[in-house]
Amino acid sequence: MAATCLKCEYCKEDQENYCDEVQFVYNGIFWDGSITYGGYSEFLVVDHRYVVRVPDNLPMDAAAPLLCAGITVFSPLKDNNLLESPGKRIGIVGLGGLGHVAVKFAKAFGHHVTIISTSPSKEKEARERLGADDFILSTNPEQMQSKKRTLDFILDTVSAKHSLGPTLELLKVNGTLVIVGAPDKPIDLPSFPLIFGKRVVKGSMIGSIKETQDMMDVCGKHNITCDIEVVKTDKINEALDRLAKNDVKYRFVIDIAGESSKL
Amino acid sequence: MAATCLKCEYCKEDQENYCDEVQFVYNGIFWDGSITYGGYSEFLVVDHRYVVRVPDNLPMDAAAPLLCAGITVFSPLKDNNLLESPGKRIGIVGLGGLGHVAVKFAKAFGHHVTIISTSPSKEKEARERLGADDFILSTNPEQMQSKKRTLDFILDTVSAKHSLGPTLELLKVNGTLVIVGAPDKPIDLPSFPLIFGKRVVKGSMIGSIKETQDMMDVCGKHNITCDIEVVKTDKINEALDRLAKNDVKYRFVIDIAGESSKL
Repeated sequence: MAATCLKCEYCKEDQENYCDEVQFVYNGIFWDGSITYGGYSEFLVVDHRYVVRVPDNLPMDAAAPLLCAGITVFSPLKDNNLLESPGKRIGIVGLGGLGHVAVKFAKAFGHHVTIISTSPSKEKEARERLGADDFILSTNPEQMQSKKRTLDFILDTVSAKHSLGPTLELLKVNGTLVIVGAPDKPIDLPSFPLIFGKRVVKGSMIGSIKETQDMMDVCGKHNITCDIEVVKTDKINEALDRLAKNDVKYRFVIDIAGESSKL
Repeated sequence: MAATCLKCEYCKEDQENYCDEVQFVYNGIFWDGSITYGGYSEFLVVDHRYVVRVPDNLPMDAAAPLLCAGITVFSPLKDNNLLESPGKRIGIVGLGGLGHVAVKFAKAFGHHVTIISTSPSKEKEARERLGADDFILSTNPEQMQSKKRTLDFILDTVSAKHSLGPTLELLKVNGTLVIVGAPDKPIDLPSFPLIFGKRVVKGSMIGSIKETQDMMDVCGKHNITCDIEVVKTDKINEALDRLAKNDVKYRFVIDIAGESSKL
């Protein structure tokens, strides 16, 4: 988020990420017609109102993706009162860039965490390295059936087109599923699991700057960072190829200064 | 609703309509294997825990459909705190059996009501007879565009397959849309209007018996009933044909006793 109007009700209430004129730091066309290139540079000029302080104890590279993946999963946890009420049963759909940070937050806040994934190969990683308490293979109907009505809250981080029906069935009555992945095609929402379980589907997009600073401070306190692979600028194309194949654990970080200092 | 388990957490917390073993009064197969025929008889034996008292000042025929259409729209209004906080901007998608009662409740509770419909012919009816404050023709992109981010709450009563995208855009940030119609095919849910507006989509199904009695008492106090056409049993097939063509304002009620008394 590079700029917002600063005048609307959302900007005034620390929800400026939902301002109708929000401008993003990359891949956007700014108000003046210029293209935004985000942080792909050694230094840049920014508006002080859109800057977040990184706690001193966090390494800059592993903290960098928190400013997207971290706040994207932190905001819905906070918004649904999951920071102060431990012991809830939380499902996380997808174990990638967003999902792996979500596990760290959910465990730090004392919840029981279930990973829901289409990849059997992720079970070991989820349980042993990230500390997830349970794992459901979503392609296995028996597993899905046996866990119906067991979860309080689900965070859906999948950005591919999918149906919400089977996932919604995992929620208890009144349970909430928050979508933070952004499939470019509409998601299939069958009405019966929604209606018969009085369930709730919400959207959430990054967070306000205030919320992002809160998230950073929480990460400093709990020592939470993203799992990253650092690449120099000459390896960007290779990294993009691997990204397309889902071959990254879990975020690439480009070390711009590191490379250019050698030029 | 004819019976529920009476033992689960939902039965114990006056949410027995979400009991996993809920049995419906018609078109269902009961626990004993018999088929449920609902109220299609002169008299019937029922469990006292699933009976609601109709206020003395309401006519029985026009009150009858309140026990489905009425509670179906009342429950989400109550659940979203719209009974005690007047002045909200409420949209109602579809002006049929559910929608027309929803207008009556929303107006009785002091809200600004907008009907969202694909039928231009319903505008006059909505405004003049039912007292709606505004009307949006959902097939008109300019009208939809001009009303973006204007509504606090939307009740979607449409039971045909449709996309939620354009309707969600009508909601303010944090706004809620409740689905009470039950399309048999999945609804299209585009992620962008959900995510960029932090919007909420919920399901809701009838209400508990306690809630249904509350609804009936509110109807007695505000003199709210359904608009109906009463038919004798010999006109049922004709009524069903007209129902398939959407040609009813707004609910048929079958007068079983009236017909059989002539036999």
